[in-house]
Amino acid sequence: MVYEATTSAPVNIACIKYWGKRDTKLILPTNSSLSVTLDQDHLRSTTTSRADPSFEAGDKLWLNGKEDVIKEGGRLWVCIKEMRAWRKELEEKDSTGPPLSSWPLRIASYNNFPTAAGLASSASGLACLVASLSKLYALPQTPSQLSLIARQGSGSACRSLFGGFVAWREGSDPSGIDSLAEEVAPRDHWPEMHALICVVSDAKKGTSSTSGMQRTVETSSLLKNRLEVVPGRMGAISKAIQEKDFESFARITMIDSNSFHAVCLDTSPPIFYLNDVSRAIIALVEELNRASGKVIAAYTFDAGPNAVIYALEENMPVIIGAVNRFFPTNEEFEDPFKTQTKDLPEGFDVRVVREGGWEKGAVKGLIHTRVGDGPRTLGEEESLLNDQGVPKTLA
Amino acid sequence: MVYEATTSAPVNIACIKYWGKRDTKLILPTNSSLSVTLDQDHLRSTTTSRADPSFEAGDKLWLNGKEDVIKEGGRLWVCIKEMRAWRKELEEKDSTGPPLSSWPLRIASYNNFPTAAGLASSASGLACLVASLSKLYALPQTPSQLSLIARQGSGSACRSLFGGFVAWREGSDPSGIDSLAEEVAPRDHWPEMHALICVVSDAKKGTSSTSGMQRTVETSSLLKNRLEVVPGRMGAISKAIQEKDFESFARITMIDSNSFHAVCLDTSPPIFYLNDVSRAIIALVEELNRASGKVIAAYTFDAGPNAVIYALEENMPVIIGAVNRFFPTNEEFEDPFKTQTKDLPEGFDVRVVREGGWEKGAVKGLIHTRVGDGPRTLGEEESLLNDQGVPKTLA
Repeated sequence: MVYEATTSAPVNIACIKYWGKRDTKLILPTNSSLSVTLDQDHLRSTTTSRADPSFEAGDKLWLNGKEDVIKEGGRLWVCIKEMRAWRKELEEKDSTGPPLSSWPLRIASYNNFPTAAGLASSASGLACLVASLSKLYALPQTPSQLSLIARQGSGSACRSLFGGFVAWREGSDPSGIDSLAEEVAPRDHWPEMHALICVVSDAKKGTSSTSGMQRTVETSSLLKNRLEVVPGRMGAISKAIQEKDFESFARITMIDSNSFHAVCLDTSPPIFYLNDVSRAIIALVEELNRASGKVIAAYTFDAGPNAVIYALEENMPVIIGAVNRFFPTNEEFEDPFKTQTKDLPEGFDVRVVREGGWEKGAVKGLIHTRVGDGPRTLGEEESLLNDQGVPKTLA
Repeated sequence: MVYEATTSAPVNIACIKYWGKRDTKLILPTNSSLSVTLDQDHLRSTTTSRADPSFEAGDKLWLNGKEDVIKEGGRLWVCIKEMRAWRKELEEKDSTGPPLSSWPLRIASYNNFPTAAGLASSASGLACLVASLSKLYALPQTPSQLSLIARQGSGSACRSLFGGFVAWREGSDPSGIDSLAEEVAPRDHWPEMHALICVVSDAKKGTSSTSGMQRTVETSSLLKNRLEVVPGRMGAISKAIQEKDFESFARITMIDSNSFHAVCLDTSPPIFYLNDVSRAIIALVEELNRASGKVIAAYTFDAGPNAVIYALEENMPVIIGAVNRFFPTNEEFEDPFKTQTKDLPEGFDVRVVREGGWEKGAVKGLIHTRVGDGPRTLGEEESLLNDQGVPKTLA
């Protein structure tokens, strides 16, 4: 009998950004945030967890085939410890099952997108770890309860435990018990929501988000005001999602991205994630919206120069056409939706984006995806571990 | 008898930025600001104003040899009208002098720095116009009173009516009567204060400051907080100037520049003035300060990508050496101070600025100057007008 579970978990990209912790140990945020879960058909982490009494003592974890040390007191360690404690609780109530909580673990995790893509892999990765252990341990906890553990692994990971549109409530309890993720709307509520990720080349290694956000909390005077306005934005964007009001959704998304990067700049020393290409993509989207006479696209940027453009499926032809025109990529673009691109809208002022001014590869590649579902349980044929509990890729 | 005056006026670069008007007609700012006046030996506007009853009716003005229309109700028109009104007052009290207020004016103005340098020429230009008319009209008004008129020509022009370190008090009266400039300290108080202007190349035409600041007032939610913190900064930087405390002066200057660009980014659509080269100069200065173990340089950026680096004269050798090393210019650098450059401080991490990564001319040119005096009255041999009241350059 093999006790093992394999799951996959999605990437999420925030519309209302998480930036700042009020408790760095428990990862309690200074503000609530809200994200769109992206489709695992395109971007996902996959994790296999196995418990076996015959394994050498001590847990082991491999990330993309490379062993990762599970440091005592570290984030991975905390997540595994908490999940094991829930399993132990279960075993103490009902001792008929196998004592999995006392067995060593072997965990393999794999991201189907390159780390170099600059997408936060920690969110999908930690969510996937929690999802696979929950499955292995047959835990009764809800996704919101599991999100409490994922949050301690990597703040925004808590939002990857749901599909659709997801809020991470900041909560107020010092223990963190109410700082959890919940669904605002499922993917089926608004399946037309698509996303285009523009992977932007950047020579400079940016400030890590963990250290950057702490510096903002310590030094930015504008952050205080950001924290005052975010609750209003959370309410307004949730309403926009409920009503499928793209224009409002887009406006709030862009404003909050800009507000986040503004407090980064207001940090001492200042933190810059946007570069000249990011700025040009912002100009492109603003001009597309202006020339279209309505808001058809929303940009948002995390802690790096990559743009994520949210748009309804019907508007992707003109958006992809515009991005391709100004930013020829080196990589060939494989669009899973086979979008037939369209010309720029009439009246679009090409000077705004410096037509012809961007060298090939300034945008390295594009990823076209859409709103997706939450963690999936996969069949044993998808297991990442071989019979010995070692990643198949290493065997 | 020729009634004419020729004056020069300096450029000023703010440490606490002016961004936002509470009254767009009177140019009343949403916050006080503070600047350093730069030396007219290097950067100046020069203006000759002449009144003559034999001139064809109507005033005329040439800027850099090109006639500029004095639009009724426009900013130039308002300044001339107000100055003439003060002259008329004088003539009504004492009618023994010539009735200059009723005679047509011919005004020629010239900037000794190229418009392409991206330095705000409107501040020195408008201050110079007001200074020359004040001299021509033999007005008794003080520089602070004159600053009320210059302010209506171009907000920050009011600060160019003084040398040294200058505050523009926002005031509270709706008429604008208390929104004026005053000296915080004269140049002789701290003559070691030098400035290095790095003229940064930028393909993109930025948003004009007039329209940009209005958009910030209308759309930025973070501006409210900026307005709350600026008064504290005004007090702290004035104290730093009084005490010649460079470290505090520098820290506040950098923080306020970043805060200003942060509210620009928080504007909808966002306004960007800093580009990748500006960001790299910020990184360079931050690393110089870190490696030096103390703050030796302060960057500040106005509504464009150019950096102004304030530093004490003794630290310019290492700063100019560092800028030259990372940003080779196309133009040859003529340093009026013949600074002998020095190597980077030990421990400077060249990766921070991407050594070798910046193409020649990313910084187009450098201007080394220092704190300077207020408007100067020049001799008649410096007049810009010929006998016919036409710019000599056109004759």
